Amino acid sequence: MATRRDERTQESRRLLVAAAAELFAEQGYRRTSFIDIAERAGISRGSIPWHFGNKLGLLEAVLDDRLRAVLDGFDRPSDDPFDRVMGFVRLPVARLFITLLAEAVEADSPIREHYARLHAALRDGLGRHIPEGALPPGVGAEAFTVLLVGAVIGVHAQWRVAPEAVDLEAVGGALRALLLGASALRDGDQP
Amino acid sequence: MATRRDERTQESRRLLVAAAAELFAEQGYRRTSFIDIAERAGISRGSIPWHFGNKLGLLEAVLDDRLRAVLDGFDRPSDDPFDRVMGFVRLPVARLFITLLAEAVEADSPIREHYARLHAALRDGLGRHIPEGALPPGVGAEAFTVLLVGAVIGVHAQWRVAPEAVDLEAVGGALRALLLGASALRDGDQP
Repeated sequence: MATRRDERTQESRRLLVAAAAELFAEQGYRRTSFIDIAERAGISRGSIPWHFGNKLGLLEAVLDDRLRAVLDGFDRPSDDPFDRVMGFVRLPVARLFITLLAEAVEADSPIREHYARLHAALRDGLGRHIPEGALPPGVGAEAFTVLLVGAVIGVHAQWRVAPEAVDLEAVGGALRALLLGASALRDGDQP
Repeated sequence: MATRRDERTQESRRLLVAAAAELFAEQGYRRTSFIDIAERAGISRGSIPWHFGNKLGLLEAVLDDRLRAVLDGFDRPSDDPFDRVMGFVRLPVARLFITLLAEAVEADSPIREHYARLHAALRDGLGRHIPEGALPPGVGAEAFTVLLVGAVIGVHAQWRVAPEAVDLEAVGGALRALLLGASALRDGDQP
């Protein structure tokens, strides 16, 4: 049974992850200090190492948390996964992915491999939801998954720069139609 | 007839654009000064306003230059456009797009609208090369183009973070197969 103390510990952890996600999105990983994060979360700075070890541990927790939010949409069979992913990219905190990406591709970036694991987990999670018949002839599942995850990343980038130019709902529909349409057409199940 | 002076002017301009592209990719737009750019280009700093007006004018020239390099690949009918785009993302200077994107999505970014124009020009340029039959039933050309440009942006992001995990050649082939395959299948021209 969870004690009150366990609950408080979990709540502190949650607040620290949320504050770090906001700050990494706003000012990047490098420029964000434990002091900033503790202040935003309203929690003593000394507890951060206790929860996460170091700043990379905290980054890992933030990425895990965001990743789970994306993948949850894909694993809930009652919802349309593409609608949910397009809904996720609308969240202010999703900007985090763009800010951290720029730092991850810098020479000798300490966060590159952490970011690479995020992409790999996205490919793994989304790849499992590609319908069997959706692969065009001669196309491997791996390349197709890179393309699918790439489309989500790049649609997010375009929408974040110019939300008025990108109709996320229509794009989610296009992604769905492309995947399901290809398999339907191949099965002779044309509408 | 171009005089020697015209040629020297063009050459200076070219060197400044190339130096600015490198520096924007390495350290971002905000942190790059005219002094840095002049030093890298080996050209007097006083000539930058003469060529470009201000720093935003120089950014515009850099983005135009990079955009032309992408779209040239699409407009050369002898080459495979997807191979050429995948070749472009391999260039070190293509990192520029990721670095500037992160700055463009910051609150009150001075470069946001310039970056939005780049995306719009990419959609316009690449959109013209979508084969007529490639649109899945019920999918508009606009949403499909956002998806196509998004795939290129997002494949670039994944490759730049972890080149060993992304086979650019296979992904270019998947993109081609997806576009051409969908139209071939619809035409009953199945292999």
